[in-house]
Amino acid sequence: MSVTAAAGFRAAGVRAGLRAHGDRPDLALVVNDGPSTTAAGVFTRNQVKAAPVLWSQQVLREQSLRAVVLNSGGANACTGPDGFADTHHTAERTAEVLGCGAIEVAVCSTGLIGERLPIDSLLAGVDDAAAALGAGPEAGTRAATAVLTTDTVDKQARHGAADGSWTVGGFAKGAGMMAPSLATMLVVVTTDAVLDAGVADRALRAATAVTFDRLDIDGSTSTNDTVLLLASGASGVTPGEAEFTESLRTVCADLARGLQADAEGVTKRIAVTVTGADSDADALLGARAVVRDSLVKTALFGSDPNWGRIAASVGASEARVDPASLSVTVNGVLLCAAAAAVGDRSKADLSGPEITVEVDLGLGAGTATVLTTDLSHAYVEENSAYST
Amino acid sequence: MSVTAAAGFRAAGVRAGLRAHGDRPDLALVVNDGPSTTAAGVFTRNQVKAAPVLWSQQVLREQSLRAVVLNSGGANACTGPDGFADTHHTAERTAEVLGCGAIEVAVCSTGLIGERLPIDSLLAGVDDAAAALGAGPEAGTRAATAVLTTDTVDKQARHGAADGSWTVGGFAKGAGMMAPSLATMLVVVTTDAVLDAGVADRALRAATAVTFDRLDIDGSTSTNDTVLLLASGASGVTPGEAEFTESLRTVCADLARGLQADAEGVTKRIAVTVTGADSDADALLGARAVVRDSLVKTALFGSDPNWGRIAASVGASEARVDPASLSVTVNGVLLCAAAAAVGDRSKADLSGPEITVEVDLGLGAGTATVLTTDLSHAYVEENSAYST
Repeated sequence: MSVTAAAGFRAAGVRAGLRAHGDRPDLALVVNDGPSTTAAGVFTRNQVKAAPVLWSQQVLREQSLRAVVLNSGGANACTGPDGFADTHHTAERTAEVLGCGAIEVAVCSTGLIGERLPIDSLLAGVDDAAAALGAGPEAGTRAATAVLTTDTVDKQARHGAADGSWTVGGFAKGAGMMAPSLATMLVVVTTDAVLDAGVADRALRAATAVTFDRLDIDGSTSTNDTVLLLASGASGVTPGEAEFTESLRTVCADLARGLQADAEGVTKRIAVTVTGADSDADALLGARAVVRDSLVKTALFGSDPNWGRIAASVGASEARVDPASLSVTVNGVLLCAAAAAVGDRSKADLSGPEITVEVDLGLGAGTATVLTTDLSHAYVEENSAYST
Repeated sequence: MSVTAAAGFRAAGVRAGLRAHGDRPDLALVVNDGPSTTAAGVFTRNQVKAAPVLWSQQVLREQSLRAVVLNSGGANACTGPDGFADTHHTAERTAEVLGCGAIEVAVCSTGLIGERLPIDSLLAGVDDAAAALGAGPEAGTRAATAVLTTDTVDKQARHGAADGSWTVGGFAKGAGMMAPSLATMLVVVTTDAVLDAGVADRALRAATAVTFDRLDIDGSTSTNDTVLLLASGASGVTPGEAEFTESLRTVCADLARGLQADAEGVTKRIAVTVTGADSDADALLGARAVVRDSLVKTALFGSDPNWGRIAASVGASEARVDPASLSVTVNGVLLCAAAAAVGDRSKADLSGPEITVEVDLGLGAGTATVLTTDLSHAYVEENSAYST
């Protein structure tokens, strides 16, 4: 399954020695053997962009990719011109061993910000990865595993045409510093469908806008976020744009749920839906405010249906709110109507791992859902000891 | 000292039985005996406003206050028309026992959102507080203590004319759900200076804009934030507006530092200064983004000078950032220049309770400082168990 599910792709995951601890693989390579090399990408909106993001943005202007090389063990962000040169050398070495141009090779990095990567180990790892390339599911899984940092499990997904004529598959990583800024993690999705560059770009933007862009773990937008779509055309089948976009959305949604379930310190998987807003954009502003509120997230960690904090959070957002028509429902139990208590809050049982929060603004037809997780002791522990 | 430091004021703090646990006082009364009753107020920008905020905003249109009654044990927010009636009855009872009009009585409440207050206990407490009014420092301290919720100490401050001819004093409460929305807590400041309503209003807005409005504990904006200034004119002295504003700013800054030092779960007092921004407004956007970033706050809890998270946070803000001119200094040690590492991060010793973060955007002359605290296990513990 995963990134090698579609015909025309090979992958590898090897240990290059970039991570100080453990023996997990830390370098992944995904290669598109064609016949087509159509590609599209979306990147972080952070103004401080990592070197691999700056490089890959340039590469994607050609709307074509032969390969993606990804590493954990270091973000190569805030590393100056030397860090950019490291990325460039990585793409050049990959191009050399694959027999293509460096401009056909995207680079993704993840890990600590501000440290140079050990470039000799990295380049040796590229050689090893090229030698280890395979088309089977094990190769895809090794690649999906090599990009993990504080993630505890690999995230893979696949979908495709109802008649099996083409396939979409991919992997994702990301557990912290996740907030929606186009994309919020490293994701590679492949397909053997025949796509032109315009379809690939539109489908990727449409699919990420309602999946990765609706996942907010901690409100922090990474310097490295990248989502790439590579299309080999190896199936020989050209799907309808709507059908392909829906399949791509399904894969991205699967991967986003996988990221949510493995987020740093997660004990609750939370979906916040705002309805009745003046517009979908307003609903999204309200939902984002709720999922970023530390008081809401700590209350839900404590299995406490503290709807007052939810009402305060949406009231402080930029969405238009009228208390007279504001209601809050938690795990299906209406707790607040017209911004006042109704019913018995103890009936909302939050002891399980899934929590749904529904805020109805009662103003219009706008709606949006954002996924998040709780703010737990484990989140604090993990992030107070990460770089030391 | 405190709210009774200035001539013309009496205060009381009594136990009305509004708080379920403990034996701390929970109802405070501050009375202005004149001869003047000039007043000004600033209130939360949250669209979901507590009943006492809606009431006090109406009252302050008259720019005059004879008394303020404050309670802990319940925010009286999201309580509907019945909750508003409770606030109105509280003001009426206070006016009755003081012999003034209800329109001269502001009301402030703090505590859990969404629960009605026990109105009979509250009204009986008003009677008790009126009987207990005193002009000495002990009375001021009892009032300052009665408004505390998760606060562990009372916060009081005083300042005044160099020649002692007039005085400014006050108290503040607030430990969580604090983010700058004009004011972010309950604060009562009194003065015996002679002020007209215009001066009182301008001075209060100017002083709060650079003190309480620059304190952000958890990014959550309360439904109840209120800052009130009452001027008795009892000194008979009319200060210059600039001199009075500076004295008021000093008192507000003292109180804001007291709130920071007693914030929920605090182990580090953090000041984030952004310089070199396009404008002061841009600097403020950048500083607010850094103090609201969970990854920055958890790193500082861990005494980790993780400047990469700081750079990422300001880069994701709405302030204009150019990585080529971005530098980060932590506790006086330059760690990042041109968005790349310089020097030895281990030289930035964050083991103490005070941390200064300086971000120079290198673009212009805009500057702003915002105070915050770290995100600790104690913050999570306190806020995951608050209402249950």
